[in-house]
Amino acid sequence: MNGFGLDNLPYGVFSRPGGERRLGVRLGTDVVDLSSLGGHLAAGSLNPLMAAGRAEWRAAREAVIAHVTAGPPLIPLSAVTLHLPFEVADYTDFYSSEQHALTVSKILRPDAPGLPPQWKHLPIGYHGRSATVVVSGTPIRRPSGQIAEGVFGPSRRLDVEAEVGFVVGVPGRRLATTDFAEHVFGLTLVNDWSARDLQAWEYRPLGPFLAKSFATSASPWVVPLDALATVPAVPQDPEPLDYLRPSGPGFDLRLSVEWNDTPVSCPPFASMYWTAAQQLAHLTSNGAAVRTGDLYASGTVSGPERDQAGSFLELTWNGAEQVKLADGTRRGFLEDGDHVRIAGTARSAAGTEISLGSVSGTVIP
Amino acid sequence: MNGFGLDNLPYGVFSRPGGERRLGVRLGTDVVDLSSLGGHLAAGSLNPLMAAGRAEWRAAREAVIAHVTAGPPLIPLSAVTLHLPFEVADYTDFYSSEQHALTVSKILRPDAPGLPPQWKHLPIGYHGRSATVVVSGTPIRRPSGQIAEGVFGPSRRLDVEAEVGFVVGVPGRRLATTDFAEHVFGLTLVNDWSARDLQAWEYRPLGPFLAKSFATSASPWVVPLDALATVPAVPQDPEPLDYLRPSGPGFDLRLSVEWNDTPVSCPPFASMYWTAAQQLAHLTSNGAAVRTGDLYASGTVSGPERDQAGSFLELTWNGAEQVKLADGTRRGFLEDGDHVRIAGTARSAAGTEISLGSVSGTVIP
Repeated sequence: MNGFGLDNLPYGVFSRPGGERRLGVRLGTDVVDLSSLGGHLAAGSLNPLMAAGRAEWRAAREAVIAHVTAGPPLIPLSAVTLHLPFEVADYTDFYSSEQHALTVSKILRPDAPGLPPQWKHLPIGYHGRSATVVVSGTPIRRPSGQIAEGVFGPSRRLDVEAEVGFVVGVPGRRLATTDFAEHVFGLTLVNDWSARDLQAWEYRPLGPFLAKSFATSASPWVVPLDALATVPAVPQDPEPLDYLRPSGPGFDLRLSVEWNDTPVSCPPFASMYWTAAQQLAHLTSNGAAVRTGDLYASGTVSGPERDQAGSFLELTWNGAEQVKLADGTRRGFLEDGDHVRIAGTARSAAGTEISLGSVSGTVIP
Repeated sequence: MNGFGLDNLPYGVFSRPGGERRLGVRLGTDVVDLSSLGGHLAAGSLNPLMAAGRAEWRAAREAVIAHVTAGPPLIPLSAVTLHLPFEVADYTDFYSSEQHALTVSKILRPDAPGLPPQWKHLPIGYHGRSATVVVSGTPIRRPSGQIAEGVFGPSRRLDVEAEVGFVVGVPGRRLATTDFAEHVFGLTLVNDWSARDLQAWEYRPLGPFLAKSFATSASPWVVPLDALATVPAVPQDPEPLDYLRPSGPGFDLRLSVEWNDTPVSCPPFASMYWTAAQQLAHLTSNGAAVRTGDLYASGTVSGPERDQAGSFLELTWNGAEQVKLADGTRRGFLEDGDHVRIAGTARSAAGTEISLGSVSGTVIP
């Protein structure tokens, strides 16, 4: 079943030519239409089911498993268009891979490398632009902007960030880390495209803005938390403040990045320092609300080895050490026509290896 | 008419006890129900009218003026509840007052005061949290957070930012400054509440996050651009890049800030360095989309004098020089129970002085 068996069944929204949007689950290389199951499963978006809460999520999953087991019609993926499966409310992006933060500091601030002083005390994050979250496969038009003082033009340092996104179902404020599984519906793969030249010129003191607001791609599949095994989170030192404890579950996810079909890295999600439960608790600790459809991403997932980099900034050491692709060409940052595919696998609640699908995009001029 | 005559007629959304939301305009201290006019004016939100475009905006305004002139029933403001008049899509906040940026640098970085290097080359901005944009009058619960390393608790340096918000009607990408009046429907007063202690600890390198995401208040009234006179924008040196030219119109708005009913400052909007047209052009220059309901705020409006400060950080020099209120008490930052009201007036297209209404809030523990 290629990682898309009964132990997975991620949700998506599809349409057939001229048809309306429907909820489906992926089974192998097919989609199973859920509209005949009625209720929230007959909607054209995941939002109503996501808002309904964990008991409904579990009942829906049982109904879906029974439906799929009964041998429903299978619709080949090639016959449908996949859409963003939920309406994005607020989009937030974190910065929770210690290795990513360390490596970026070494590359960009070699005279004073190291983590920002608050990095181990709170999960640093920022708000992004929800209008430009797009479904995997959407072409990525190279952004223009001020790439240096006095120079406006197409970005010359267009990059990717391999991330895992968490999708909020049930609204809330001031959530504890232990509330995580009651509020977060599932996860999806995210590529937070980034223009490093725009970012370097614009980001002080209010953070990245246009460098990241032109496009963020998400997988068309949302894997429900109930499908996933949890693993112990990484130890944290210093011990976090009370509102960030207990740390909540980790997930054993392995990402892979292909650049023009050449595998270039395998970022290990299990090494992330801050957990998704801590990110949610931090995000709402000041009284801010999360809503159905909020998407918050883990931050770039990078491991300690070069071939575990979740960005090309790290993979090519800011373009200085180009990578060789299968066709013999070399790359520092993205060129027009380049195609990036980020895929992922996970250990399922059943102990098997399942697929998180993939998020991909091609750069156009 | 107290600044709310036929030359103004700002739009709002109101409801009566047990009643549905309806569009109205403010006339003096009353509301005029627009639902009998049908079409977009019969909606319960401004979004459909805002999406319809400038020709519709003008036709609607003519119909509203005729309706109001004909002597419709007047509903006292005291008999209605006012709501946020549009659904906020993305919320963006700029930093476009030169005086504010300069003063903040003097206060927070006295050893190296000055504008960030890119400040005069582009309007610096960041994305905020649209979930927590609330209508004027909503109580503001003091946010908690990491107010210093190892300390989680209620913010001790809770502040305001007096701003003007621009509301996008017609979606677009890569807009020219000359597209401004085709896409922006109107303006509203904004208070971007800020927790300075959270901000100082969290903001490097990704910008303010929880320091500003707990609440942003907006006036219940959106004044259509067609009601407002434009004035020449301030001269800019160096000359901006082509995509930020021409600079577009300025607006002759005067804000006033009252702290527990004591007038403490009068921030002059006409001195803003970057125009709303340049902010819109910059925001979309990388290919990012604006949507109906996007709200982008000017940034704190501050003039060169102490009593023109748009934040209490500036007004009290970071709490070091407290202000004396009418009741004899002194303040550095906001205390529980404090009430802040930001009001504004403008020169209308008819040459008269009109009111922008006000945005207010009371701090609760």
